[in-house]
Amino acid sequence: MNINENYSKLKQNYLFSEIARRVNTYLDENKDKSVIRMGIGDVTRPLCPAVIAAMNKAVAEMGAAETFRGYGDEQGYGFLRGAVKEYYKRNGVELCDDEIFISDGAKSDIGNILDLFSEDNTVLIPDPVYPVYVDTNIMDGRKIIYMNACEENDFLPLPDNSIKADLIYICSPNNPTGAAYNYEQLSAWVKYALENNAVILYDSAYEAFICEDNLPRSIFEIEGAKNCAIEFCSLSKTAGFTGTRCGYTVVPHSLKSGDTELNKLWLRRQTTKFNGVSYIVQCGAAAVFTDEGLTQIKENIDYYRENASIITNALDECGIKYFGGKNSPYIWLKCPFGMESWEFFDLLLNKINVVGTPGAGFGENGKNYFRLTAFSTHENTAEAMRRLKALVLEMK
Amino acid sequence: MNINENYSKLKQNYLFSEIARRVNTYLDENKDKSVIRMGIGDVTRPLCPAVIAAMNKAVAEMGAAETFRGYGDEQGYGFLRGAVKEYYKRNGVELCDDEIFISDGAKSDIGNILDLFSEDNTVLIPDPVYPVYVDTNIMDGRKIIYMNACEENDFLPLPDNSIKADLIYICSPNNPTGAAYNYEQLSAWVKYALENNAVILYDSAYEAFICEDNLPRSIFEIEGAKNCAIEFCSLSKTAGFTGTRCGYTVVPHSLKSGDTELNKLWLRRQTTKFNGVSYIVQCGAAAVFTDEGLTQIKENIDYYRENASIITNALDECGIKYFGGKNSPYIWLKCPFGMESWEFFDLLLNKINVVGTPGAGFGENGKNYFRLTAFSTHENTAEAMRRLKALVLEMK
Repeated sequence: MNINENYSKLKQNYLFSEIARRVNTYLDENKDKSVIRMGIGDVTRPLCPAVIAAMNKAVAEMGAAETFRGYGDEQGYGFLRGAVKEYYKRNGVELCDDEIFISDGAKSDIGNILDLFSEDNTVLIPDPVYPVYVDTNIMDGRKIIYMNACEENDFLPLPDNSIKADLIYICSPNNPTGAAYNYEQLSAWVKYALENNAVILYDSAYEAFICEDNLPRSIFEIEGAKNCAIEFCSLSKTAGFTGTRCGYTVVPHSLKSGDTELNKLWLRRQTTKFNGVSYIVQCGAAAVFTDEGLTQIKENIDYYRENASIITNALDECGIKYFGGKNSPYIWLKCPFGMESWEFFDLLLNKINVVGTPGAGFGENGKNYFRLTAFSTHENTAEAMRRLKALVLEMK
Repeated sequence: MNINENYSKLKQNYLFSEIARRVNTYLDENKDKSVIRMGIGDVTRPLCPAVIAAMNKAVAEMGAAETFRGYGDEQGYGFLRGAVKEYYKRNGVELCDDEIFISDGAKSDIGNILDLFSEDNTVLIPDPVYPVYVDTNIMDGRKIIYMNACEENDFLPLPDNSIKADLIYICSPNNPTGAAYNYEQLSAWVKYALENNAVILYDSAYEAFICEDNLPRSIFEIEGAKNCAIEFCSLSKTAGFTGTRCGYTVVPHSLKSGDTELNKLWLRRQTTKFNGVSYIVQCGAAAVFTDEGLTQIKENIDYYRENASIITNALDECGIKYFGGKNSPYIWLKCPFGMESWEFFDLLLNKINVVGTPGAGFGENGKNYFRLTAFSTHENTAEAMRRLKALVLEMK
């Protein structure tokens, strides 16, 4: 057999293994120390009571012949698609049930959606970036153009009409930078996509963290987006589902290539290569969208937001420039004293036993930046920032 | 953008929608009637108590901060991979933990595995066949060669050395025919694959139904198979997980293309385009492999086996030839009176209100065959067979 040779072009991503290696080396040599982990992109708060109750009920149903559920529709149960539809309606976005596809998470769908596109599309990806956008396209052999996200554009690059792209990745609020596009900026992207017959692959995994009114929570709040965008969202950060696994993808009927609806292609892809999400998980996911569930997940998000405030207040006091942290669980700070990101990583690890994520791991434009996350406890976040402030004061 | 034009080459599979249409038409015109469904390939028995208990515990863990689980490894928790490894050991197959990948089901992995192979591989697929093998390769634009599974070879085609194939699909026990390869036959396939540098994609989703000693439950029971095969299995039929969603794929380290381990490619694929199975589901899956779980799932399988016996006994009495039904939940019968499969479908629907699956839906070689399944209740199965016997007697 012949293997897919594109795999040989993938770079190993050593980011998290290198972080682990350095942390372990430090702890081996300093057995009396422990570290505060501020780099992890994973939630820590438990699932909310409404979700737990719904899943308990679902598990019981699966154990009794009268209520047992076998195969469900690959694209998800109607009760959950209906709940997602109502959730979108809150943001003024009207969708049909069959424009919503339930999945085991945004990462799967963001990778699998590329099945629908030929290899000869040109892909536009911001730098710095969530590495999955890059690697999934390298696996298919597509040409990638990077767009600069940098301090000068507040890490929110806008369309460059001299560049012709077919597939455009936008993540807003962004991972890793925490930057979020406003209506006007996102409208510029929709305009560009419509003019260039391009598709925007819009990752809204962090939409639940948006708290400012001038920021769209869905690209479909922008006029024309239903003709040029696919949106991926997830309950991972919205409701702490990183280990429970449920997301949803919206493919509008009006998104077409010639006469072909991409919705129909995705339906065909999913019915052929996927068999739906666990009934138990879908019941838990539907509970997120009840009034009770929405109130409860907001408490968790507010908890993380409080951590973000603790971090950004400390950075303000230190005079360290940063992006994100307001509509995002991520704080993207410029390494002080002109340091590079791995140098700053080593400084924090060795001097104050705090672990973050070096920006270099997300692309060339991240090499002087550093990602902190709001997913720790209040206590650890406050302690880490107390130490950071003391360190910066001492070094100034 | 340019879409994947291979999608336009897919045939719509009208099998189950056409069955539903004909049944609904009949019921609309005969409002006093109800039908017995013997065509459905879905389990009906509830999850066993050991699985329910494990999932209840897992749900509770997800609701408490101290025991909450976020992201797990994409390839599955060690506790489940270890349990699968022990399960294989019962059949004399020694695997490493990292040769086992946990997934949301065999259908996903059977589709997604094709990411690892280039488009210029030739694919060998039996006819009749589970349509997913065909459609996933059409989506990628690969050349497909069909091999005849027919009465003459007991629906168990053997290698033809005049044909050069790179990817070979084998499902044993087979869906739809219920036929299962023995050691000698499967050894012939392994020999062919090794000689032709081919990979066998082995679907063992129905292995739990094997009750005869001379039939392998895993292709890795065959010497040399670790150099030429990938095995896909699922808890769907083993433990009633069709709506709970968990499967596993085994990619041995010794399966290589040149120096490249396919195991490493699949790990890269899964870590990039997948984020693991729900912790709750993995806990339920691990409970299947405990002594208690294995005893309980055997009771369900025995229940379905009893249905299979009810069906095969009735067919014997009718003098209708069939395949499967012994090591499989599927009974693949030759339509009596020289009928074609849709003709026989209409006969059973209209005369005795029994619904099965026309073999024509699985390929050209199925056009005179008909699939019945053992997944109904004892009562309905017996009643359906009582009616069938009376009908055949009347027509003789």
